[in-house]
Amino acid sequence: MNAESLHSHKGRYAYERLERVIHEKARLGILTSLLTRPEGLLFSELRDLVGLTDGNLSRHLKVLQEESLVSIQKAFVNNRPQTTCLLTEDGRERFLNYLQALEQVIKDAETATKKTTKSESAWLAT
Amino acid sequence: MNAESLHSHKGRYAYERLERVIHEKARLGILTSLLTRPEGLLFSELRDLVGLTDGNLSRHLKVLQEESLVSIQKAFVNNRPQTTCLLTEDGRERFLNYLQALEQVIKDAETATKKTTKSESAWLAT
Repeated sequence: MNAESLHSHKGRYAYERLERVIHEKARLGILTSLLTRPEGLLFSELRDLVGLTDGNLSRHLKVLQEESLVSIQKAFVNNRPQTTCLLTEDGRERFLNYLQALEQVIKDAETATKKTTKSESAWLAT
Repeated sequence: MNAESLHSHKGRYAYERLERVIHEKARLGILTSLLTRPEGLLFSELRDLVGLTDGNLSRHLKVLQEESLVSIQKAFVNNRPQTTCLLTEDGRERFLNYLQALEQVIKDAETATKKTTKSESAWLAT
């Protein structure tokens, strides 16, 4: 890569739109689960879908709630406490924006592997 | 979601194949950059592509090297030290495997948003 082409590529793979609070692996699972259910998921349902312990799920939900990505509703149903977790409007928007950045990573990698495969075949053909 | 369907979805969004060492945002940029250049990148080129400081890039490269994902070659060119960073064979394989898991996240989210849009339209049509 010469100096000029490198200059134009500065920060090309910085992926700044990959918001850190969303990027955490467990939270990615939580947000995807909630995206599939706009009407919300019970705490126990969500826990099973993402395969976390009660404690870990609570900690991640607290972070997501503080960031206004998720809202938590507590109610009593048949005299038993019930916790429902929902993606907020803002959370949905930010998560969809994050997913676009994620798609860019995959596109970049796909372009890279296609290029490699091409040069490998060219090399094999000689 | 009833008890039965939930049972079959246990851990559905756990995304266990998202290897943590690769998932870190800066490392994702480093690995994508190296994937685009099988012949390797100079330390300075890589630093500019991912937009990290020398210190941060060094730290992440150390982790990736310890995990055998990346190899570092040091040489003298015109009496000046030159560091080249390369993706290892194993690193390439694990990164491609990681990317497949990432695609699954996007597919799950796409399915979710399609479903939502559909039920929203159904609701609007009533």
